[in-house]
Amino acid sequence: MNLRMIFRLICYILRVEAVCLLPSLGISLFQGERAAVIGTAVTIALAASISLITYLAPPKDKQIGAREGFLSVALCWVAVSAMGALPFFISGAIPNYIDCVFETVSGFTTTGASILTDIEALPMGLLYWRSFTHWLGGMGVLVFLLAVMPMGKGKNSLLHVMRAESPGPQVDKLVPKLQDSAKILYAIYIGLTLLQIGLLLAGGMTLFESLTTAFGTAGTGGFAIKGDSLVGYSHYLQTVCTVFMILFGVNFSVFFLLLLRQFLKVLKNQELLLYLGIIFFAIAIISWDIFPIYQQVGEAIHQAAFQVSSIITTTGFATADFNQWPALSKTLLVILMIFGACAGSTGGGMKIARVLLLCKAGRRSIKRMLRPRSVSQVHMDGQVVGEDVIQNTYSYLAFYTAITVASLLLIAIDEFSLETNFTAVLACLNNIGPGLDMVGPMGSYANFSGFSKLVLSFDMLAGRLEIFPIIMLFVPMAWSRN
Amino acid sequence: MNLRMIFRLICYILRVEAVCLLPSLGISLFQGERAAVIGTAVTIALAASISLITYLAPPKDKQIGAREGFLSVALCWVAVSAMGALPFFISGAIPNYIDCVFETVSGFTTTGASILTDIEALPMGLLYWRSFTHWLGGMGVLVFLLAVMPMGKGKNSLLHVMRAESPGPQVDKLVPKLQDSAKILYAIYIGLTLLQIGLLLAGGMTLFESLTTAFGTAGTGGFAIKGDSLVGYSHYLQTVCTVFMILFGVNFSVFFLLLLRQFLKVLKNQELLLYLGIIFFAIAIISWDIFPIYQQVGEAIHQAAFQVSSIITTTGFATADFNQWPALSKTLLVILMIFGACAGSTGGGMKIARVLLLCKAGRRSIKRMLRPRSVSQVHMDGQVVGEDVIQNTYSYLAFYTAITVASLLLIAIDEFSLETNFTAVLACLNNIGPGLDMVGPMGSYANFSGFSKLVLSFDMLAGRLEIFPIIMLFVPMAWSRN
Repeated sequence: MNLRMIFRLICYILRVEAVCLLPSLGISLFQGERAAVIGTAVTIALAASISLITYLAPPKDKQIGAREGFLSVALCWVAVSAMGALPFFISGAIPNYIDCVFETVSGFTTTGASILTDIEALPMGLLYWRSFTHWLGGMGVLVFLLAVMPMGKGKNSLLHVMRAESPGPQVDKLVPKLQDSAKILYAIYIGLTLLQIGLLLAGGMTLFESLTTAFGTAGTGGFAIKGDSLVGYSHYLQTVCTVFMILFGVNFSVFFLLLLRQFLKVLKNQELLLYLGIIFFAIAIISWDIFPIYQQVGEAIHQAAFQVSSIITTTGFATADFNQWPALSKTLLVILMIFGACAGSTGGGMKIARVLLLCKAGRRSIKRMLRPRSVSQVHMDGQVVGEDVIQNTYSYLAFYTAITVASLLLIAIDEFSLETNFTAVLACLNNIGPGLDMVGPMGSYANFSGFSKLVLSFDMLAGRLEIFPIIMLFVPMAWSRN
Repeated sequence: MNLRMIFRLICYILRVEAVCLLPSLGISLFQGERAAVIGTAVTIALAASISLITYLAPPKDKQIGAREGFLSVALCWVAVSAMGALPFFISGAIPNYIDCVFETVSGFTTTGASILTDIEALPMGLLYWRSFTHWLGGMGVLVFLLAVMPMGKGKNSLLHVMRAESPGPQVDKLVPKLQDSAKILYAIYIGLTLLQIGLLLAGGMTLFESLTTAFGTAGTGGFAIKGDSLVGYSHYLQTVCTVFMILFGVNFSVFFLLLLRQFLKVLKNQELLLYLGIIFFAIAIISWDIFPIYQQVGEAIHQAAFQVSSIITTTGFATADFNQWPALSKTLLVILMIFGACAGSTGGGMKIARVLLLCKAGRRSIKRMLRPRSVSQVHMDGQVVGEDVIQNTYSYLAFYTAITVASLLLIAIDEFSLETNFTAVLACLNNIGPGLDMVGPMGSYANFSGFSKLVLSFDMLAGRLEIFPIIMLFVPMAWSRN
């Protein structure tokens, strides 16, 4: 157990966070938001000071194994969340520290669930920080760090961290060198974000609005800077967001293939086809179901497309209060919450790749029951899927179910409705944000008890890190010396 | 594929059903229920005639393999349900045939979900048949048949049928010879049922009431002969039912061990301990939660104990309208719905043994992630659990989730509330009966569309037969010639 290396990573990540807080400080200074300036400045100073401790205890070796990968990812996420909550707390913008943590975890995990009831009252600097956490969390904070860090002998370190932090059942290697892969992913991420910012600016948004909206879209987060989410924007702006939500829910390796002009491989990507198929199917059904409300085919499709894209990509923006929609549409949206976006995207949920893998593994188990002696392997995109990946997908489903059930029971102590609790757990565990009933798109998580907010914060972290890293924190074996 | 043998089993099972309908015919004759007499008599004649066809096409060999095991179990259950629905239909007691099928499937699968809104209006002969289906379905119809049938060379036949029809991840062999095992199970089943009938009679129930109530308890079914379930009975009678519901939710091999005086083995049975632990824990929490409603500790515990036992054993009797209880209690009951009773009992749900296996397999997968090269096996009650059993448990969970999601979507077309739909699917798939909201213990399934009732009937069969046999009906490979 290389505890010193884990500690060093935490220090590094806090230093990165301090730097990332600078734009917020600038905005608050520019806007003359006194309390926010103090809150942000103190946090930056604190994070920077803590990060210096690493020089007092340099690690003997830089090797990161499987265990260090899990633990460092989990601890780094807890650390950036606890630290990132401070500007809200010190400035007094959100008086309760648990609320601050909930909001920040919701940001970094790209959930977008909010305890704020009056979003517009927040200082602009803090609004910017709140949205920027989405963008930072979307692609993963540690992978970024390791992509730019000289690794020396710890060649496999990045692999273990990527396994723990990247969404999906397997890690894609775009190019032979992992560090290069990570850099390419970030380049694509930045490129797409800039493109969206440009398109939003062209539609008449202010720079501030387009930045925060793009951060929320790119990270598939969903924090909006207005209480009614994106309801007030034009159809053009909403459509830009619809398209980019879908894009950010696609496995980034698809974009890499597009850049390499390997179109045939893209067209054969089973996860992509299923993802687009589900979106199309869901939009069709919901458009039909909500037509009586909107009375216009075009409007019904527009609203259905936005909400479907928002939910399946686990973004959580809203242009309509789907809590008021008929039961069929609500049910379909709840199911999409569980499915989630593609592996290797910024989206959350179980991931379409896992759903696909489970279907294929299910088909194989039927086959095996009928012919016990037959040998068969599971294939994905023409390649054999390892038995360990299938095993992990199964146990992912088991843990996912267990966490859902346990959380449901724990937050039920607050005695809100079953629909509220069930969708709140799903919305947090799958990093979506809005649920139904009390936590609907126009509602908030404010009324939950502090305990429930901590449970839901745990769910958000478990969802973003795909369960295992965060569970390892509670496994003694993960901490043992050898 | 031994289609002739499957057909022969269907014929035999219909003959058994004809015999089982005789008491109902007797009651209807005695009560002078004209329509019910005609309905029952016609059904008996029809079932008996069809069962004679088997002599025209005797099977060449009596061998039943894995595939025949699955298919014959699934087809026999469909056949007895379709036939068993006829007395309701022909007598006109339930005018719609789909409703009749729903009610009969609900009976045989020991679900206890009802489309009746005025139960007391049903003729007594049909009320008896309705409750008796629970008793027949509880232990499994085919296993009974094969236990008393001379098998000749088809020695493994019973094994494949038992695997397909018996609840739980593994088949227990009580004694070396499977046929003897089946006979012992039936003896215990009959013995416990008679004991309960005696205790109910002692509490002042009429013979008819005690028979139907005992059938509903023994099969963990839950059809009551009154609209308010067991609300109107004395505390003594309710407590007898509480105790016997818990008993019928226990793995029957435990009773066998008790008969053999192997008490130590019983005390070490992990599933039993977990089952009793969960019941105790749930009663404690719910008693505390509903205390404000009942204002008396004793009464709160009494109500909590009855409802918890009823739900976890998937019986579905009610002595209180738990739909009116606070959210925490309702949530806990919904979770217990999923857990279900012990393997090898008459109860439904996922089974405690599977929950336990999933926990153990989950712990192992964590261990494997931390130490990829370590080898470890899953143990249960001191014995190694085969990898195929773990694989099947995982794929059971995956199919279970898939069926829940698909059913939820299909019945959402009716546009009832999410709580109604979600609990209706859970209550049917886990063979419980009552859910929440519209399908609460004092509600009914009457308002669902015919299509939704078919979907829910499918769920009930899938739940009772533990998914795979019923899925095989739709798998071409299961039907292929070789």
